[in-house]
Amino acid sequence: MESLTPTERRDLLDRIDRLAADRFAPRAAAYDREARCPVENYEDLWKEGFLALNVPRAHGGLEVDPLTYFSVIEHIARACASTAMTLHMHSCATKFVALLGTPEQQARYFAEVVEGGKLLASWASETQISLTRTFLVSTPLRPVDGGYVLNGDKHFCTMAGVASYYLVWCMLEGAADMATGAMLAAVPADNPGVSILGEWDTLGMRATVSPGARFAECFVRDDEILGPPGGVIASGVLDMLGLGYAAVYLGIAQGALDFTLDYCRTTTFKPQVTPIGHDPLIQRQCGEMAITLDSARLVVYRSAADFASVEQSQRSPLVARAKYAATQAAIAVTTACLQVCGGRSAFKTLPVERAFRDVRTATLMPPNIDTMLGAIGRDALGLSGAAFKFG
Amino acid sequence: MESLTPTERRDLLDRIDRLAADRFAPRAAAYDREARCPVENYEDLWKEGFLALNVPRAHGGLEVDPLTYFSVIEHIARACASTAMTLHMHSCATKFVALLGTPEQQARYFAEVVEGGKLLASWASETQISLTRTFLVSTPLRPVDGGYVLNGDKHFCTMAGVASYYLVWCMLEGAADMATGAMLAAVPADNPGVSILGEWDTLGMRATVSPGARFAECFVRDDEILGPPGGVIASGVLDMLGLGYAAVYLGIAQGALDFTLDYCRTTTFKPQVTPIGHDPLIQRQCGEMAITLDSARLVVYRSAADFASVEQSQRSPLVARAKYAATQAAIAVTTACLQVCGGRSAFKTLPVERAFRDVRTATLMPPNIDTMLGAIGRDALGLSGAAFKFG
Amino acid sequence: MESLTPTERRDLLDRIDRLAADRFAPRAAAYDREARCPVENYEDLWKEGFLALNVPRAHGGLEVDPLTYFSVIEHIARACASTAMTLHMHSCATKFVALLGTPEQQARYFAEVVEGGKLLASWASETQISLTRTFLVSTPLRPVDGGYVLNGDKHFCTMAGVASYYLVWCMLEGAADMATGAMLAAVPADNPGVSILGEWDTLGMRATVSPGARFAECFVRDDEILGPPGGVIASGVLDMLGLGYAAVYLGIAQGALDFTLDYCRTTTFKPQVTPIGHDPLIQRQCGEMAITLDSARLVVYRSAADFASVEQSQRSPLVARAKYAATQAAIAVTTACLQVCGGRSAFKTLPVERAFRDVRTATLMPPNIDTMLGAIGRDALGLSGAAFKFG
Amino acid sequence: MESLTPTERRDLLDRIDRLAADRFAPRAAAYDREARCPVENYEDLWKEGFLALNVPRAHGGLEVDPLTYFSVIEHIARACASTAMTLHMHSCATKFVALLGTPEQQARYFAEVVEGGKLLASWASETQISLTRTFLVSTPLRPVDGGYVLNGDKHFCTMAGVASYYLVWCMLEGAADMATGAMLAAVPADNPGVSILGEWDTLGMRATVSPGARFAECFVRDDEILGPPGGVIASGVLDMLGLGYAAVYLGIAQGALDFTLDYCRTTTFKPQVTPIGHDPLIQRQCGEMAITLDSARLVVYRSAADFASVEQSQRSPLVARAKYAATQAAIAVTTACLQVCGGRSAFKTLPVERAFRDVRTATLMPPNIDTMLGAIGRDALGLSGAAFKFG
Repeated sequence: MESLTPTERRDLLDRIDRLAADRFAPRAAAYDREARCPVENYEDLWKEGFLALNVPRAHGGLEVDPLTYFSVIEHIARACASTAMTLHMHSCATKFVALLGTPEQQARYFAEVVEGGKLLASWASETQISLTRTFLVSTPLRPVDGGYVLNGDKHFCTMAGVASYYLVWCMLEGAADMATGAMLAAVPADNPGVSILGEWDTLGMRATVSPGARFAECFVRDDEILGPPGGVIASGVLDMLGLGYAAVYLGIAQGALDFTLDYCRTTTFKPQVTPIGHDPLIQRQCGEMAITLDSARLVVYRSAADFASVEQSQRSPLVARAKYAATQAAIAVTTACLQVCGGRSAFKTLPVERAFRDVRTATLMPPNIDTMLGAIGRDALGLSGAAFKFG
Repeated sequence: MESLTPTERRDLLDRIDRLAADRFAPRAAAYDREARCPVENYEDLWKEGFLALNVPRAHGGLEVDPLTYFSVIEHIARACASTAMTLHMHSCATKFVALLGTPEQQARYFAEVVEGGKLLASWASETQISLTRTFLVSTPLRPVDGGYVLNGDKHFCTMAGVASYYLVWCMLEGAADMATGAMLAAVPADNPGVSILGEWDTLGMRATVSPGARFAECFVRDDEILGPPGGVIASGVLDMLGLGYAAVYLGIAQGALDFTLDYCRTTTFKPQVTPIGHDPLIQRQCGEMAITLDSARLVVYRSAADFASVEQSQRSPLVARAKYAATQAAIAVTTACLQVCGGRSAFKTLPVERAFRDVRTATLMPPNIDTMLGAIGRDALGLSGAAFKFG
Repeated sequence: MESLTPTERRDLLDRIDRLAADRFAPRAAAYDREARCPVENYEDLWKEGFLALNVPRAHGGLEVDPLTYFSVIEHIARACASTAMTLHMHSCATKFVALLGTPEQQARYFAEVVEGGKLLASWASETQISLTRTFLVSTPLRPVDGGYVLNGDKHFCTMAGVASYYLVWCMLEGAADMATGAMLAAVPADNPGVSILGEWDTLGMRATVSPGARFAECFVRDDEILGPPGGVIASGVLDMLGLGYAAVYLGIAQGALDFTLDYCRTTTFKPQVTPIGHDPLIQRQCGEMAITLDSARLVVYRSAADFASVEQSQRSPLVARAKYAATQAAIAVTTACLQVCGGRSAFKTLPVERAFRDVRTATLMPPNIDTMLGAIGRDALGLSGAAFKFG
Repeated sequence: MESLTPTERRDLLDRIDRLAADRFAPRAAAYDREARCPVENYEDLWKEGFLALNVPRAHGGLEVDPLTYFSVIEHIARACASTAMTLHMHSCATKFVALLGTPEQQARYFAEVVEGGKLLASWASETQISLTRTFLVSTPLRPVDGGYVLNGDKHFCTMAGVASYYLVWCMLEGAADMATGAMLAAVPADNPGVSILGEWDTLGMRATVSPGARFAECFVRDDEILGPPGGVIASGVLDMLGLGYAAVYLGIAQGALDFTLDYCRTTTFKPQVTPIGHDPLIQRQCGEMAITLDSARLVVYRSAADFASVEQSQRSPLVARAKYAATQAAIAVTTACLQVCGGRSAFKTLPVERAFRDVRTATLMPPNIDTMLGAIGRDALGLSGAAFKFG
């Protein structure tokens, strides 16, 4: 993969900015209200090639460098967090295919994505396990003739019912641990062994639609298994996942801050005759939000820029720094945006309250704050330190 | 007004705790989802006498002391923030009647409350004005034969359509400022000059139902005016309003923390075999939440205990301290509750995400953070300092 | 012990306030500069009876209740942190005598204090151990004919060379743990087996003079041992120690804040013509300092008021709450005092920079922040939780 | 001025790192204790060319680009804050000469620096004025035959008695404001009209030696005046000054953090058998310090890298961002370093307590926090916003 030139990257970001402003932003409130996946946005993304950000060029994809990739995710999140997050999850799923798939599997799935606009999901969470605490998967995969049988319940199944393939994390029966037993099964959405469970009615990130799913004696063909046992972990895509979360948080907060600054520039209350942006206390608060977000932005983009060049074993603290900085900044900034804009900004007609809900929800995704600080600390102390603790 | 003995206060709080646990808590999610006023709760409160917390005993009310009053509000907020907030607003409105009403007015309105279970609302906000910045009212009240005519739009009209009387803040035509012109008109909900405007679809405090209202050539009889020009401000009920907000924030956060502690005591994730409350990092976070909220509680209750005994001119910093401490603690604690409970707590089936939304919304009510800190600072510096700046 | 009436307490505090203002405050800078124990202050304290705050009335002491005691410590700390801290340590040492001493020992040591103005020190720290991490003592006490022989190095030996008796924490040879082996030996300062080691040149709390000490084949008579093995821990004086630290932090910060508020009221810079206290941003900062310290004060005094009435096993979280709240508030407030007063306040001619150093130094004393939050958290979770982990 | 290549910059930084480690660090405690300017360090800096960082190459200087310049300052500060700060002030003074001096003046003063190892100081502060509030100078400069006469008191006169020339900010008699009247007089240290006033005994930055100075009918020749009236402000060196402060704060905190991490890697307390760096809570705290400082570092170096390329009018928010981020991070990190290292780190034998004092002192230099946040906020709001308010 070659890096885009700054100009090429800028052009790509301009294209996504236009899509975000013209299409995604106007639709965002309705997706949120209805807790519905942004399928119209996916259609737009597909037509512009963005469903194939991580698909190799040989298969018709854009195959952009990490800095470009995370920039695109951030820019989309400014307008619609759920679109950015689900595109990111789909893109990580295509990365699994690129890293673990056989040539035949790559041809098959990439054609679906590039030509058919199909989406891939990737599901790991289980009800009895907290991935933010221990990254462990227990859904058993039992070998049978010509394939495997999958049983168990997953939750937080993003894009359930909308993606065409669900890349399901599971554990090879009899394996001792994740390193030797974790597997990835690409289950077609229409496999009769899958059913969607429960509802998805949450604080934020509502348009990611991530209910539960049940696999009941679900047959998976041999050629629907991606990579060898343990391959899903060794692939390093988890690091990419975490860094993309950071980009999403950053983008949501940037969108909220942009709105807030504009609100301060244009809103005047009686008996004052100038906009509230002329009030020194408002300027002070805007300054604090701006520098808070700018600092986090520098951390996230430094990690994104370094992502390709460091050893895979070094990526964990890189991701932890970005995700931690983005988490803290995004929570602080979206909380403050509501404070600065005041009571009027609590209405759903304005986008800041959605940003506030989306940030608080999305930042609950693993790894959690203590885990990240531990990883950063061990790295600073010269101790080896992965962010995730695998079961 | 005599203070209750500790035992009487405890008994009263036990009664409200039972109501809160048995009736308000189970209904809270539905009121929130539907953005509907908790009318069934009002019925329960009425039957138990709690609609008359601030109604004089001579008129059949409970007439409790401030410490008891704010305690009741806090306890209700643990289960349902909107119930606590609207009861508080109604109770402040009854306080206006007690302080500004003629004997005839008191008899009339208190009978409606005590015998009829009727609610009083109090509306000050206007679209062109930010009360968190300058406390100014511009809705004009024009004297005519036998009364006045009221014109103008209000917003944040809590309990619109549910209260029986709207105590509308307005400005006597030709008056120079609030001190000499602010008036309070008790408009019956069925006055044909009133209409409800717009929608109420907000981040939180959704069951307070506070849309806009329009007064179009709305006739108000002389005997529907409460007190002389400026009386509404001189009454000091604004201070009571602010301290009640603090009690609401505290209660919401306490409810969220209680849930979170219970969650930590009872939730175990694989591969661990003990509840997450045994994890030292979880204990540390619980400790931080507990001491944060305990500190704020001591500040709020100190202000409540001192409220009756200090000069009215001294109440402003008292209220500012309570509201500031409760605001900061409630935001920090509800944000952290979601962090500690993790992704599962973002679901609307659990009460923490509602607490998070309610706190962020309710804490936007005036006075704002800078105004409160200014008032506390001026008091510390020996400068006179009201929290509100009147226009 | 009976509680003082509010009037008696106020009178006592007035007396200590006068001593603090007239004697301690003017001397504080010199003690700090010279890192010398405030012996002239001890003389004043003795004459007024304050060396006997915890000495039983039967022995001529004041024997004040905990609330009064911690108030006195706080008030002294406003003027001179080292005087408050060393008086507190002496008072805890007298408490050991009161709780563990035989009638003969009590008579002996209390006479020295009450009539002779003698000071008692109490030393636990060792170089190889961090009491903030594990409360463990390893200095061995070997039984011999007629007594014991003590060997080992201690550090942080407050009042070394100034106190007349050093109450040395040691471990009975062969004992398995602190609960069954920790002992307290009252070594006279002129015992030839003791020598003072090293220097005391620190950031702050310089007038506590706490260098190292060496015990080399130091003979201790049987009747110089206080209490049975483990008694020193079971006595619960450690809790009293921690709560006194909190009172010291609070007092230092209060002194710094009082100075700062006065500075803001009286300092004018060109081209302004009013003192900086009229600047809204200064008022905001003063407000933040005031409410921060007020909140901590309420926590500390609530713990002090409850100290006598709760079970000893419940004191640990009580102390942890007070010490944590006071630590955070005192660091924040003294840091901010320098910010508000500006560059001029960094000069040693003004007392704020000493407060800043004293707070940062004193708050390093055990238990540390994580230990305290853990204890508060376990208490909130209903788990038993002592603040100290005994080795 | 051309930028150094990354390799040249790295080589230069390696040279300064060696000087810092071998010479400056070992001497730092003594300079601090004695409040004495680091004259031996100046000698070392001179021999290696570092007194001429901002001297044009045509005059024998290094004339490095801003990124290199601020990096050098930061690296020195890791070992000795006062050396970094005074070198920075001297370098800004040489910048004044480069920007405002006539060819003859440049030749004269640069020869003194390059060949003679002489130092230039620059003094603006006055007792009646707070530059952190309003940047105003009132020391009058009265025109007389052949020159001017200077009268007035300055304070915070860094390197008084050590620098060879004092560049004194003064106000041309009769001028209306700073823009048209501020002037810079290069007064030789041996001018009989100058005398040093008062003492320099401060919390930190003690080796910058910045007492007061008095100018009494001090005659200044025409050719000792640098630039036209107002030139000293228009030169933009104030921005350079502020950005250098940020580099100093960053360097001090980095030095303290490096020490702390090393301490955690190598210190073991009984009864544990591994260094405290293996404790998850210590790792968490180290992680928090590391990411806090890393974020600030990215902000400071981004401002340094952009400094040369932006318009002078744009530099103010650039500097405000760097100084604010460095201030907050350095205070937080040095405060936490003492917390992590514990009571032992309060001793003056270890460098962390000096870092703590130096940071709190140096961060009091103008512009202050509110001023910086205001400048950042106005910039974010699209309002023009200089950090300094000129009188």
